[in-house]
Amino acid sequence: MKLSGIVTLLTDFGEHDPYVGVVKGVILGIHPAARLVDLTHQVAPQRVLEANFQLRGAWEFFPAGTIHVGVVDPGVGSTRRILCARSRGHVFLAPDNGLLTGVLDPRDEVRAVTNTRWFRGGELSHTFHGRDIFAPVAARLLEGLEFADVGPVVTDPKALELPQPVRSGSGVVRGEVIHVDSFGNLITNLRPQDVAHLPEERRVVRLGSRVIGKPVDSYAAAARGNALAIFDSFGYLEIAVNCGNAERTLVTGLGAGVSIGE
Amino acid sequence: MKLSGIVTLLTDFGEHDPYVGVVKGVILGIHPAARLVDLTHQVAPQRVLEANFQLRGAWEFFPAGTIHVGVVDPGVGSTRRILCARSRGHVFLAPDNGLLTGVLDPRDEVRAVTNTRWFRGGELSHTFHGRDIFAPVAARLLEGLEFADVGPVVTDPKALELPQPVRSGSGVVRGEVIHVDSFGNLITNLRPQDVAHLPEERRVVRLGSRVIGKPVDSYAAAARGNALAIFDSFGYLEIAVNCGNAERTLVTGLGAGVSIGE
Amino acid sequence: MKLSGIVTLLTDFGEHDPYVGVVKGVILGIHPAARLVDLTHQVAPQRVLEANFQLRGAWEFFPAGTIHVGVVDPGVGSTRRILCARSRGHVFLAPDNGLLTGVLDPRDEVRAVTNTRWFRGGELSHTFHGRDIFAPVAARLLEGLEFADVGPVVTDPKALELPQPVRSGSGVVRGEVIHVDSFGNLITNLRPQDVAHLPEERRVVRLGSRVIGKPVDSYAAAARGNALAIFDSFGYLEIAVNCGNAERTLVTGLGAGVSIGE
Repeated sequence: MKLSGIVTLLTDFGEHDPYVGVVKGVILGIHPAARLVDLTHQVAPQRVLEANFQLRGAWEFFPAGTIHVGVVDPGVGSTRRILCARSRGHVFLAPDNGLLTGVLDPRDEVRAVTNTRWFRGGELSHTFHGRDIFAPVAARLLEGLEFADVGPVVTDPKALELPQPVRSGSGVVRGEVIHVDSFGNLITNLRPQDVAHLPEERRVVRLGSRVIGKPVDSYAAAARGNALAIFDSFGYLEIAVNCGNAERTLVTGLGAGVSIGE
Repeated sequence: MKLSGIVTLLTDFGEHDPYVGVVKGVILGIHPAARLVDLTHQVAPQRVLEANFQLRGAWEFFPAGTIHVGVVDPGVGSTRRILCARSRGHVFLAPDNGLLTGVLDPRDEVRAVTNTRWFRGGELSHTFHGRDIFAPVAARLLEGLEFADVGPVVTDPKALELPQPVRSGSGVVRGEVIHVDSFGNLITNLRPQDVAHLPEERRVVRLGSRVIGKPVDSYAAAARGNALAIFDSFGYLEIAVNCGNAERTLVTGLGAGVSIGE
Repeated sequence: MKLSGIVTLLTDFGEHDPYVGVVKGVILGIHPAARLVDLTHQVAPQRVLEANFQLRGAWEFFPAGTIHVGVVDPGVGSTRRILCARSRGHVFLAPDNGLLTGVLDPRDEVRAVTNTRWFRGGELSHTFHGRDIFAPVAARLLEGLEFADVGPVVTDPKALELPQPVRSGSGVVRGEVIHVDSFGNLITNLRPQDVAHLPEERRVVRLGSRVIGKPVDSYAAAARGNALAIFDSFGYLEIAVNCGNAERTLVTGLGAGVSIGE
């Protein structure tokens, strides 16, 4: 696989401390030409499910050959494995805690990062593998390290149970809010294919018992301050408020039930 | 125009989600050598006026040939136009919602971005033109796209009504706080030329009815914790508290009235 | 000294305003090939002690020849000096307010940045030396400016009094919490060498009067939600809560007393 030279970083480190900067310093010390792009560092601490959602949405917008490093790692220093995977032309480095669920395909080549030769020199910390393992391994892949040399093949990467939409006998589809973005938009786990069986006139979206209406084509289709449903730019059904904040206006959030077709 | 290879990004996307990262991924996928610089992504959601203030202050500190991309875009997906302008040796891409007010000059070449050939492939989203239009067009300009090929000339870009200082018959100048920065400094719309007609002894700054004093030359000219007025590094009259936070100490904020010469 | 081309930035500017972006614009305008890495911009306003802690921990993870620019500068515009130092193969630029305490060695070559020829052209502001002095001087060093040409040698850089651990006659060591990171981890000023004299069975860590226990090897050594003590990845004794936030769980923070050996 030809690498693009780009490394994306997705962590729960925040921007308050220089942890992300230190990871970049280690990468650039090994491979000075690396192009480093932050996805986000504001994943809630240890929320692997949130990191997974963010990575699943973002990776495909990068050129083939990009290395995506995800470090939300409550098990750091324990016996949890670190995975390095090649999937659909991209490389992924993440702890084996489910962060790559839905990113990896069963046919992908997945390896455990065990070859300490590629780790940062000096004593390995028990609390900052982003700096001591993920960063140097990503940089060494850019330097030409053979994928097979990172460690042995893994056939059982850990997977999260992602909440799935449920379809009732009468065709009603029920899902839930799986992410709230910084605009307060409520992102659900419903996709166009989940409602394809419903005739157009039945596609009325409800948030709990509140009727939002049929999906519209743009935020501006609702009056300013009004709620609307829309299939968003990542393919999820989203409940938003035009020029407003749906989370605050509708007083709801993560996990709230959403239905179509009732 | 020779481009510098630098693209600045100014949005209301926040850093909580990978939206900015995705925009960067799209740009780098088209033009791998792009230099990407964040201006800020913490413009309050949909606050075009704030984005305008930030962009007006920042763009000129970049080298000629820089592309400035501003995406604060409450009308995304509606019929609002997207503008691409060449102004004083720089390029600007922004929705036609007033974001470029005061940046553009009436003599500038301004075009509407309509040529879909330069958009991201696949279905165009209705909610994320930063990714699907702004990013690929910026990248293609770096790849050598002719400015005239982005779309037709626009002669009526939308303009915001920016609050202007008012001068009374007696020479008193009244303005207002147009921005509060993260230090709590109160930035006003008063500039040195607005007070040039006043004799030095009359240049006493008031915030509402509170006397702040004559503009000083450095924060340290006031005692620690005391309020002061100073012409700041962007040429605006600013009310600050030495080693403190003026917004909190003076219990005021955006829109507060400021006068000189009373 | 051969420079790496990397410039790190550490400030209290926040990400709300384009101040950091403007600093980068000035650097790239002078030296387009500069590699810019953010350490953090969320140092609490004017907290030189916090900036010092962050820089002391981070700089050594960058390759030799990196320029580290620290701008937490409550004295901007006053007569305070600006320092440029060469230390252990790196370059440091910071106000002479103690920010470099513990980074510099008495044998280092330290100079005051006084040669206005390297400053940004135009009128020098009194409030934004990050843009007008630090950025252009860093960029000109990358362009080959001789270190000796920045200004005269300084032999008395200002130093902060950093809180030091104290050892009692009975061998008990007392320190304090000197930083709380964004995970809520309590970083103390105790290091392995501070407890080396204590037999292993006496190395029980106390936070105030609360017994935390002996230092463990990983967060996972404590049950989920339980407090633990660990020597962290920067060599400090840290009090953490496994998968939790120690600051909130233990209702404590900066300055709290910590002891070992009681």
